[in-house]
Amino acid sequence: MAGRNHLFVPGPTNCPHEVLSAMHVPMEDHRSPIFPNLLKPILEDLKKIFRTEAGQCFTFPATGTAGWEVALTNCLNQGDKVLIYRFGQFGHLWAEAARKLGFDVEIHQVEWGKGIPLDHLEARLKDDKNHEIKAVLATHNETSTGVTSSIPGVRKAMDNAAHPALLFVDGVSSIASIDFRMDEWGVDAAISGSQKGFMLPAGLAILCFSQKALAATESSTFPRSFFSLKDMAASNKDGYTPYTPSTPMLHGLRKALDLLLEEGIENVYARHHRLGEGVRRAVAAWGLKICAQPGFESDTVTAVVVPADKDARDVIATAYRKYNISLGAGLTEVSGKVFRIGHIGDMNDVSLLGAIAGVEMAMLDHGFDIKAGSGVGAAVEYYRSTAK
Amino acid sequence: MAGRNHLFVPGPTNCPHEVLSAMHVPMEDHRSPIFPNLLKPILEDLKKIFRTEAGQCFTFPATGTAGWEVALTNCLNQGDKVLIYRFGQFGHLWAEAARKLGFDVEIHQVEWGKGIPLDHLEARLKDDKNHEIKAVLATHNETSTGVTSSIPGVRKAMDNAAHPALLFVDGVSSIASIDFRMDEWGVDAAISGSQKGFMLPAGLAILCFSQKALAATESSTFPRSFFSLKDMAASNKDGYTPYTPSTPMLHGLRKALDLLLEEGIENVYARHHRLGEGVRRAVAAWGLKICAQPGFESDTVTAVVVPADKDARDVIATAYRKYNISLGAGLTEVSGKVFRIGHIGDMNDVSLLGAIAGVEMAMLDHGFDIKAGSGVGAAVEYYRSTAK
Amino acid sequence: MAGRNHLFVPGPTNCPHEVLSAMHVPMEDHRSPIFPNLLKPILEDLKKIFRTEAGQCFTFPATGTAGWEVALTNCLNQGDKVLIYRFGQFGHLWAEAARKLGFDVEIHQVEWGKGIPLDHLEARLKDDKNHEIKAVLATHNETSTGVTSSIPGVRKAMDNAAHPALLFVDGVSSIASIDFRMDEWGVDAAISGSQKGFMLPAGLAILCFSQKALAATESSTFPRSFFSLKDMAASNKDGYTPYTPSTPMLHGLRKALDLLLEEGIENVYARHHRLGEGVRRAVAAWGLKICAQPGFESDTVTAVVVPADKDARDVIATAYRKYNISLGAGLTEVSGKVFRIGHIGDMNDVSLLGAIAGVEMAMLDHGFDIKAGSGVGAAVEYYRSTAK
Amino acid sequence: MAGRNHLFVPGPTNCPHEVLSAMHVPMEDHRSPIFPNLLKPILEDLKKIFRTEAGQCFTFPATGTAGWEVALTNCLNQGDKVLIYRFGQFGHLWAEAARKLGFDVEIHQVEWGKGIPLDHLEARLKDDKNHEIKAVLATHNETSTGVTSSIPGVRKAMDNAAHPALLFVDGVSSIASIDFRMDEWGVDAAISGSQKGFMLPAGLAILCFSQKALAATESSTFPRSFFSLKDMAASNKDGYTPYTPSTPMLHGLRKALDLLLEEGIENVYARHHRLGEGVRRAVAAWGLKICAQPGFESDTVTAVVVPADKDARDVIATAYRKYNISLGAGLTEVSGKVFRIGHIGDMNDVSLLGAIAGVEMAMLDHGFDIKAGSGVGAAVEYYRSTAK
Repeated sequence: MAGRNHLFVPGPTNCPHEVLSAMHVPMEDHRSPIFPNLLKPILEDLKKIFRTEAGQCFTFPATGTAGWEVALTNCLNQGDKVLIYRFGQFGHLWAEAARKLGFDVEIHQVEWGKGIPLDHLEARLKDDKNHEIKAVLATHNETSTGVTSSIPGVRKAMDNAAHPALLFVDGVSSIASIDFRMDEWGVDAAISGSQKGFMLPAGLAILCFSQKALAATESSTFPRSFFSLKDMAASNKDGYTPYTPSTPMLHGLRKALDLLLEEGIENVYARHHRLGEGVRRAVAAWGLKICAQPGFESDTVTAVVVPADKDARDVIATAYRKYNISLGAGLTEVSGKVFRIGHIGDMNDVSLLGAIAGVEMAMLDHGFDIKAGSGVGAAVEYYRSTAK
Repeated sequence: MAGRNHLFVPGPTNCPHEVLSAMHVPMEDHRSPIFPNLLKPILEDLKKIFRTEAGQCFTFPATGTAGWEVALTNCLNQGDKVLIYRFGQFGHLWAEAARKLGFDVEIHQVEWGKGIPLDHLEARLKDDKNHEIKAVLATHNETSTGVTSSIPGVRKAMDNAAHPALLFVDGVSSIASIDFRMDEWGVDAAISGSQKGFMLPAGLAILCFSQKALAATESSTFPRSFFSLKDMAASNKDGYTPYTPSTPMLHGLRKALDLLLEEGIENVYARHHRLGEGVRRAVAAWGLKICAQPGFESDTVTAVVVPADKDARDVIATAYRKYNISLGAGLTEVSGKVFRIGHIGDMNDVSLLGAIAGVEMAMLDHGFDIKAGSGVGAAVEYYRSTAK
Repeated sequence: MAGRNHLFVPGPTNCPHEVLSAMHVPMEDHRSPIFPNLLKPILEDLKKIFRTEAGQCFTFPATGTAGWEVALTNCLNQGDKVLIYRFGQFGHLWAEAARKLGFDVEIHQVEWGKGIPLDHLEARLKDDKNHEIKAVLATHNETSTGVTSSIPGVRKAMDNAAHPALLFVDGVSSIASIDFRMDEWGVDAAISGSQKGFMLPAGLAILCFSQKALAATESSTFPRSFFSLKDMAASNKDGYTPYTPSTPMLHGLRKALDLLLEEGIENVYARHHRLGEGVRRAVAAWGLKICAQPGFESDTVTAVVVPADKDARDVIATAYRKYNISLGAGLTEVSGKVFRIGHIGDMNDVSLLGAIAGVEMAMLDHGFDIKAGSGVGAAVEYYRSTAK
Repeated sequence: MAGRNHLFVPGPTNCPHEVLSAMHVPMEDHRSPIFPNLLKPILEDLKKIFRTEAGQCFTFPATGTAGWEVALTNCLNQGDKVLIYRFGQFGHLWAEAARKLGFDVEIHQVEWGKGIPLDHLEARLKDDKNHEIKAVLATHNETSTGVTSSIPGVRKAMDNAAHPALLFVDGVSSIASIDFRMDEWGVDAAISGSQKGFMLPAGLAILCFSQKALAATESSTFPRSFFSLKDMAASNKDGYTPYTPSTPMLHGLRKALDLLLEEGIENVYARHHRLGEGVRRAVAAWGLKICAQPGFESDTVTAVVVPADKDARDVIATAYRKYNISLGAGLTEVSGKVFRIGHIGDMNDVSLLGAIAGVEMAMLDHGFDIKAGSGVGAAVEYYRSTAK
């Protein structure tokens, strides 16, 4: 098909051409004396994205999914109890990963569309007098439903309960896109991946650990090797890695960090907020609802709920085959009920207006009762009135 | 600025990523025994784009502007009379090039918005009993006004007048995008450039000459060296070039030809027609007019006329600075009166819908009396009802 | 420094420009209907490289080091006894990985320079009457010493002992470069990585498992999640992956496989043999020895032993700083005693002649008693007399 | 064939990967307000390469061959007499270009292997009492023979004769590689191309004109359009170009200039001198001669003369087909008598040692009486004793 594919899945996101070109490099010796000149500043600059001074950042040549495992297996012991609220597919998968790894996973099901219920959390933690819960697993931005939970709220609930559990946060689709503050929010392990807000291909788990979490790795006896934080930290200290890194990914990350820091992380957040709000205005203009309930709207991905007599999969298939737009599907529970528009990463108003218009075409093709141009018109008004 | 630049100037056009990657190659010896394996099939396949069997194709490492000069200086003699109708900036520049090169340029001014007046042409040629006019210079698609002239009509006028002049056609912004037929229309020199329908960076004049034109080069005494068709033809015969070619550009052209031939040249024409028509529907929905008068609408570029109290330059500047859209400016006579939306090359519905939405934002910012979403809505309806 | 870096570490190896360009692609939806068109043929074609019909190939977005872990944690149970002969750094690290993961690792130290002692192995297996040894971990090509062990010999020893242990082979620096036959040699798990013979950046563990090994995964209770073969196999069945893959790496692998299969895997082996033999001739001409003892010479990497009064690190540092050549260092036990020349991957005679000449310069700079041109001369004679 | 092609033709030269990546960019609007930010600093920085403060630099989207024409047609009038000494193929072609363009070309044939005979030049100019000679065309570095002429010597001869002719210098294979000084040597038009010392693909004529030459353009009546310096200068003044430029080539040139200026132009000269001298030592060690006579040796290309009973074309063909080395052929008069090794551009010691070794293989294959390793050995000794 002529023309570009319009990629609006919530990851992998669009790579800026500067990042792709930065990755187009000859291979190099990762044990050379100059390799640390590449790695060390990356690890330092990552701290500016995670908003930490006390924490320590790491990259593993794997994915965000592996990041969950790194946090679990390095900071906990086999069989430890962990608490998770499940309100979407990625929370589900994280719980599954913990279960497979042998942890005692306490899952609380939450209605899809809502986030972590803070009162319930606080009550549950207060109830855990023996501190059997060793870690709270919090999905900051649930990509499958477009729901953002309040991590400061989670921290407050933990503090109110004076509970010593570690706070692990899945920030795969939030960090480097929407407000995240490692130190201020008392996060112990923050987990992200390269293919979302970092605007790279998949292939790096990008992590940050608090000193408390790092201390916990010392006592953990969980069997681990490739994902050993201790080994990684020991090599990183001198600017190296315990096994061969992907130097192209590191060069790409270097460039992505340059772009993020040049824009300014607060401006990145503001941009994503505007992008998300424009999409929400379009959805409202169509007379449709989004999956996220008020107060939980995500600025990186919007799950649009289709009317009961429609199948969202038709919209997605038509958008892809007829218009070369890639949308996110509804996963498991909401399969067929929602389609998702990713607005994360290297994105701007006009890209999204194209996506909204394309979605209109696909919906009209399937007999949705919407007016052509209505969604775009609402977004046009919003974007132009808020653009600098 | 985050996100991609949205490029809707009518050239250079967007390069498909396959083309850019095909150009990312190590340098190579252009005198190697395998170099002809690259060049010869390109020259053959170009004939499928120019729609010729009898003609011969050439590429010069220069631009479309140089293509004008190649045709003029190889097929004519110094001081020869040439006839041109001027109805836009590129016709003007072609006439200027001919004048600078010492030709006797007979210019007929035509209202911008119209194309070649066929009746006038026929009458003028009939009047030229001594056949002093040696070549008719016809701008197929005037990029500055978005006007397409009828080349079959020009041919018919020449035939009706039984005039032996050569027919030179500037197809820079038409060939490989809208219907063009070298042999059927009796074109003697067709001139294009790499950065339009061929979806490459600027840097190649891409040309086709009829046998009649090639015969004329034999008798031409115009002083020329770098642009000598004869020298180029002599080297091309063996699959080489008389001086160092840009091998990356040739690899890119190879890939671009593959893409065009895979889509099918008739499908390429049809796609551009749909793209252009959608833009015209949007303009009509805004209540605005385009520069081209009925029957002259271009399928590769649309010049939108702004109301008398507005300055098109404001729209262009705002589109660029605030929304990262690159639009074409009105040139010379229509400066400030029109802005241009290029819809040529590697382009599809959703890209253009983004452009239309972006233009709406910029127009609203400058107080245009249009309804947000109106243009996009019209294009949405048109595109979706005509897409396969 | 002007001019290219000359990369002769035994991994990451030089990426062909076609592979790097194949990786320079926009991101895409890994859940699209066409994604399986990319992944499935890759997994099939990998079987041609591993030389298997009965086995099943996998890629994990990690590295060869992770590949060790995938084999261990999927096919064995916690605490199982594994047998390994350690004759270099990578065997050491594999043993360490197994130990960290809680396996009962029986290590037999072998003199660095030799490979697996087949008689000893056979005797040890015969002695293991209760079949407590669940897996034999065999390093096919020990990258740190340039030693290749006989895997058919290992298989024969196991068969002679009628021992049912699984045979795991680290083929990171052998597969896709030197003779390897999954089925014929009865290998149960073959482990490789993208950054060696596959000529890609690091970032993929590339694996092949026998049906026997896959059956063993069914009964394994080792806690695992990211590296679950079962989950990967379930997704792969439909052409997908359980989490986001690096699509650029898959496109690169597609191109690398095309290059390998076009050359012909037997020709790839023959080329590496010639490359390695030329280096050995050069070393002999210098009057130096290689680390590998006769019969164990590797065709992918040569470790050159420096005279007792010299420090190999000086050669490496000078080669890098003064001549922009990257050589492999001696690791741990042989640090300072050897430098390594990698001759693996996308490499040809002239590249290696440059490396040999560069090494001569660095050795002469440090007072080695060699004659300038002697090593190159020997390699020149060998290469030219054996080239096609 | 596996492994890279080893490119040692004296142009196109090897592009640094940074330059190729800089060219891998989306297309952009060359009339945007930020385009001058790209072009203007390039034109300024080019002055540092041409070593001029008074002169003005230009790039045309064409090749060095076109550069000859730009100088001739802008600064002279039709039929003007120009003086040229012909001692190689490129001088021949320049003379031919001038002849085709209608100039009165006075050619003095010089033995191939020597450069411009300064005494003869001075005498001839003194003899031209009426100053009929309007320009002296001097080939600084004759690429076909590997001969460098003294441009300061030419200037001195002109000054001694008090002759007002313009001095045009073909510096295609010298500028940005070997010592060149526009102002100090009183050059009026210096002509280069992108694909030599500038380390880019072909596609840009890179030029510098003195104020005297620019003044001459004012009175020239030669018919020209595409190559009009006046038009180019008028557009360049504001940072634009009179027709569509290749923005990728400009981005590539930007990066190439960064690399050259970072290395330091004097260091670039010194590097080329070392590279050339090493090759000459190798040739001497083989017992062969180079085409250039003493005092005329080029530091960018060496033409090696084969013994009378050998055909250099065999060496070139074998080097290419069997060893994947691209060497320069002997052109016209010296066809079969010489092969050429280019040592220009992004090149270092080890690359050239590979080339020398490869040439040894090809010569030995054809029964040359040389000792394997002899040439490399001589170069090894030279390079290592002179490297920093």
